[in-house]
Amino acid sequence: MTTHVLISEVGPRDGLQAMKRTMPTALKRAWIDALYASGLREIEVGSFVSPKLLPQMADTADIVAHARTKPDLTVAVLVPNLKGAIAAFASGAHKITIPVSVTEAHLMANIRKTHADIIEDVRQIVALRNDTAPGTSIEAGLSVAFGCTLAGAVSDDESMRIAHTMADLGVDEVGLSDTTGYANPRQVARLFKRLMAELGDRAGGAHFHNTRGQGMANVLAALDAGVTTFDASLGGLGGCPYAPGATGNVVTEDLVYLLETMGCDTGIDIDGLIAARKVLADALPGEALYGHVPDAGLQKGFVYADGRMPEPRDTFACTPETI
Amino acid sequence: MTTHVLISEVGPRDGLQAMKRTMPTALKRAWIDALYASGLREIEVGSFVSPKLLPQMADTADIVAHARTKPDLTVAVLVPNLKGAIAAFASGAHKITIPVSVTEAHLMANIRKTHADIIEDVRQIVALRNDTAPGTSIEAGLSVAFGCTLAGAVSDDESMRIAHTMADLGVDEVGLSDTTGYANPRQVARLFKRLMAELGDRAGGAHFHNTRGQGMANVLAALDAGVTTFDASLGGLGGCPYAPGATGNVVTEDLVYLLETMGCDTGIDIDGLIAARKVLADALPGEALYGHVPDAGLQKGFVYADGRMPEPRDTFACTPETI
Repeated sequence: MTTHVLISEVGPRDGLQAMKRTMPTALKRAWIDALYASGLREIEVGSFVSPKLLPQMADTADIVAHARTKPDLTVAVLVPNLKGAIAAFASGAHKITIPVSVTEAHLMANIRKTHADIIEDVRQIVALRNDTAPGTSIEAGLSVAFGCTLAGAVSDDESMRIAHTMADLGVDEVGLSDTTGYANPRQVARLFKRLMAELGDRAGGAHFHNTRGQGMANVLAALDAGVTTFDASLGGLGGCPYAPGATGNVVTEDLVYLLETMGCDTGIDIDGLIAARKVLADALPGEALYGHVPDAGLQKGFVYADGRMPEPRDTFACTPETI
Repeated sequence: MTTHVLISEVGPRDGLQAMKRTMPTALKRAWIDALYASGLREIEVGSFVSPKLLPQMADTADIVAHARTKPDLTVAVLVPNLKGAIAAFASGAHKITIPVSVTEAHLMANIRKTHADIIEDVRQIVALRNDTAPGTSIEAGLSVAFGCTLAGAVSDDESMRIAHTMADLGVDEVGLSDTTGYANPRQVARLFKRLMAELGDRAGGAHFHNTRGQGMANVLAALDAGVTTFDASLGGLGGCPYAPGATGNVVTEDLVYLLETMGCDTGIDIDGLIAARKVLADALPGEALYGHVPDAGLQKGFVYADGRMPEPRDTFACTPETI
């Protein structure tokens, strides 16, 4: 039986916000066009935050309007507060994600709020949604759910406490984010199983970073625990500008490859992702892009989980290795 | 209960053989010293092959002699034929690995032998070992056990047929190698479970390449299936010189980190590996080294599975990210 997995591409938000430079709006549109053409059907296209803090995201309303023209595309945005939510609902985004750090230290550093503040914000955002944008879904994305650069270890109980609080406030789903690359597969399996057991259909997806090379192992652990929605970014864009090599999100290209080889249907075409990667590379000259599949190519005889075959193309003339 | 995992470092063999340049013997010694100092207790230090074919390995007897001075270190070498085995037994290596490709196409391309040839070779090598070097262990390393650049898909039955043949010939263990990065976690779990069920204590370890970014997920799958020995190379050295970015073996630094965070005791010190990486980088200027942990550092509050704490050091002043 084929498992269907939803990949939510977060590069245009999580990737671009991590950079100092701003991608011009026309190039963002072209990139999103290419992402959509590859078969991606959920894209986090930007965030509604202060343009003073993140000028890279100042054109998010324009980008949402463009993305909304694509059939069957879920257009998602990040929203850190009520003001952002008002703008998001006005833009017509289909989904908003509110970043809710499990530790107050990270919440304060990230969006300058206490837990009491964010709880009040979420309450107001849910009420506003119910009144003015009932078709828009709300996700609470639990940042540093597996550990925190500032506070260190985070217990499962701490993360579950915030998860319940958010569910009780009426958000539609609660996702778990390994914001700074602290998660390990045992912890991932344990916490997602608990999330699904306690929150039922409000349990959301997994947002993993590949900071310490553990991203794909964490995906496997989450998948085995029953998770079917994963965030990823093309080229692994994102991450921490102060730790070179400490890459951002799991790489969409490699993730789709991994899932398809395991018989999980993503509906995404890897050649299409490689084409989108070229659009991205042209738009951000000199930026480091990660991932292995773009260099290595697909293996001989590769078939997608739904039976599609990739376009024939030159394979690498790789000399066999000893052992 | 803590699982103990053996990491077999194959960089000095699998990494160096993939390069055109030859590392001077003194630098190989210094690198092996640093690897040993990190806590590694099995190192594949070279191969006994024709120096015309692989001049990088011409000093393997010298390197074995040097490595044999280290207490409790298993000194392993690769041996493709009887002539190599004679040299290996004479050198005093503790363990030899014979690369036995599951597909005849790869076997022929790699060591110019048919299956009938290699079976006869293994028979003679085992007999020679029994007569002259009874303390030396013999592993058959099943190359392309999960798929082949030349022949495409490889069935579990094909791999198991060669595995049984090797066990029947009297090798001590049969390991499975994903030589060209074709394996996926479902296949890994299935084939290793079968190997262990059918070969018992002759089932050997896992040798994964990270060609398509799936290395760590395959490690997790093998670990969950019961595998406790993994090959890896410092800096992910190795791979195919004709596919840039198609990295070699799984990265020792990231693998040790992953295992330790899951409570698996490797006995290895990550700071020691980073020190060895510096020795390696100095010995191979300009060579691409892979891995994430060396850049990102250990997480705040990291503790080894055996309770050791890392040396305190500067952590990266990474700004928290949104979500």
